[in-house]
Amino acid sequence: MNIDRGNLRDFIRGAAILGTGGGGDPYVGRLMLDQELRKGAEITILDPDDIADDIFAVTVFSMGAPTVFVEKIPNGEATITALRKAEEILGRTFDAVLLCEAGGVNATLPLIVGALTGLPVIDADGMGRAFPELQMVTFNVYGVNICPVVTVDDYNNTVVFEARDAQTAEWLARAVCVRMGGICQTAAYPMTGRQIKDTAVRHTLTLALDIGRTVREARERHVDPCQALLDYFGKAREPRYSTLLFEGKVTDVLRETKRGFTVGRVQLEGIEGSSGTLEVTFQNEYLVAKHDGRMVATVPDLICALDRETAEPITTENLKYGNRIKVIGVAAAPVMRTPEALAVFGPQAFRLDDEFKPLEELA
Amino acid sequence: MNIDRGNLRDFIRGAAILGTGGGGDPYVGRLMLDQELRKGAEITILDPDDIADDIFAVTVFSMGAPTVFVEKIPNGEATITALRKAEEILGRTFDAVLLCEAGGVNATLPLIVGALTGLPVIDADGMGRAFPELQMVTFNVYGVNICPVVTVDDYNNTVVFEARDAQTAEWLARAVCVRMGGICQTAAYPMTGRQIKDTAVRHTLTLALDIGRTVREARERHVDPCQALLDYFGKAREPRYSTLLFEGKVTDVLRETKRGFTVGRVQLEGIEGSSGTLEVTFQNEYLVAKHDGRMVATVPDLICALDRETAEPITTENLKYGNRIKVIGVAAAPVMRTPEALAVFGPQAFRLDDEFKPLEELA
Repeated sequence: MNIDRGNLRDFIRGAAILGTGGGGDPYVGRLMLDQELRKGAEITILDPDDIADDIFAVTVFSMGAPTVFVEKIPNGEATITALRKAEEILGRTFDAVLLCEAGGVNATLPLIVGALTGLPVIDADGMGRAFPELQMVTFNVYGVNICPVVTVDDYNNTVVFEARDAQTAEWLARAVCVRMGGICQTAAYPMTGRQIKDTAVRHTLTLALDIGRTVREARERHVDPCQALLDYFGKAREPRYSTLLFEGKVTDVLRETKRGFTVGRVQLEGIEGSSGTLEVTFQNEYLVAKHDGRMVATVPDLICALDRETAEPITTENLKYGNRIKVIGVAAAPVMRTPEALAVFGPQAFRLDDEFKPLEELA
Repeated sequence: MNIDRGNLRDFIRGAAILGTGGGGDPYVGRLMLDQELRKGAEITILDPDDIADDIFAVTVFSMGAPTVFVEKIPNGEATITALRKAEEILGRTFDAVLLCEAGGVNATLPLIVGALTGLPVIDADGMGRAFPELQMVTFNVYGVNICPVVTVDDYNNTVVFEARDAQTAEWLARAVCVRMGGICQTAAYPMTGRQIKDTAVRHTLTLALDIGRTVREARERHVDPCQALLDYFGKAREPRYSTLLFEGKVTDVLRETKRGFTVGRVQLEGIEGSSGTLEVTFQNEYLVAKHDGRMVATVPDLICALDRETAEPITTENLKYGNRIKVIGVAAAPVMRTPEALAVFGPQAFRLDDEFKPLEELA
């Protein structure tokens, strides 16, 4: 696969849909990457099925609250500083970078690093969606060491964390992230090609591009792009259960930027075929959706808020009173639903009382 | 000079008097160091006048809120981990350690590191007293780079800061300190012998020992130890103005552990020769003393709270309703009162409205 100016909009749209409300504003991500592509940069994308076991790669991403990202824009140069610092600590250079998560910013920042450094980007990530905390990735669930974690701000202040586990690294790094202004550029999870093959969610970039293209093509054919998306998931190479959870109008948004996250809840009142109220709580990403109090979807399954006409993704920092939204649910990849995985990013990992139930069972 | 089990109590008492309410509980510091000395450890103390210009040393200390230090005891091994990490980063081993500040814990922790590693301890520090924030040292005022700052907790979680200045390092490291439980063992300000000679406050260990001995000897002679202390400062090798500011009884203590500090104020009602009320605000250390609203002493001059009978120092975390206290003021060393120094640790550096006036002018 390839990402260029021709398919950039499709790619970003798809990445932000997978971001389930988080991972950063796709408008910001698109402008950032487009700026590099305009200069003639080319990005090499590697299929994780084809990489050698002994290559060495690292994830790069913006850590923080997406409400901040739209004012204090992610920084490619600072991200490279983080990556180079990790190389210096490890005494070894990286052969490639990869995504930590999908999302409007966090799927593009690794591509920007690829464009600026010439490093190839591996078509894989640690969740096939977005999550707010550093430990919430398959890399951690299946045994990759998160450390060193390197965070860098716009002034090149650099902080390196060597913690006993990923959750402690998150706990310590989040405090620094807040003091860096609510966003920092980060390198973490240095790993080999073998570890990527064993632990990553594969082909997340390809999936994002397919999703974004599906939406655009439906619009061009004047059919409902949300429905086209549901059809796509059912017929994909690895089919995933997906469903329309609710169609409604935003009647209330409670959103705070605190402890380094964008947290709150959104309420929708039903329109068209939907009746009653849907409430979706979020921490950067949409976590749990409840229809008149009954849970209809929960992490790690994907809850995606889409404009009801265009299917453009609506991220948590962009929710507004009056938005007309279709909320769809998509089953997470099987690797994300194991007991080990649910312990790290099931609802209880977010201190919610709800227990995980697969989307298809809740329907 | 030498510090051993014979003079340990004198030394700690003096260090805590210089700590001006901060720097840690001398009881904790004494037990920690005594434990090492009982095992037969010997500590080599170097006179800063005699060190070679090219030796390489680092300050080690406990960062945090002294209210926490009495429950979550400072940790010699973790301090050594911090020191070794700094060596690894700099690619150079240290020839000695030195104090960052005086105080019941922070004057003993470097000696414990000396006892455990065999590294000599230089008889100097960065203020001849204690201050709450990392940038508040003569090393920083006169151009020594604070970085790398290495903080370590009891689980050996390690965080390394490379910041553009000492104030930024403090801002970032404090957040980690709070998340490490309100205390972390720290190495910072790696520097050469030349830099120590150019920037340090010399002979702080000797001064602490002399002060502590003066108090004990006065008690043995059944004369007022507080008065003996004032006499000592007037007749010392480098005489310092000092005065009894107030004699009173604690009628109110407002003390909170927040943002990684012990902050608040204490009120005393006059007894004996003193009338009216003295209020002393503190952030780990006593900052400003006001007698019936009129400032009588302010940082960086030393404000020391002493038991009115025994002259044992009373630290801010140990203040209690009913304490009978003599509050004395001691002029800071001249190097601490320059305009550059006052910009870093004068009252306005603590966001107080008061302007610095020398103790002797306020009398």
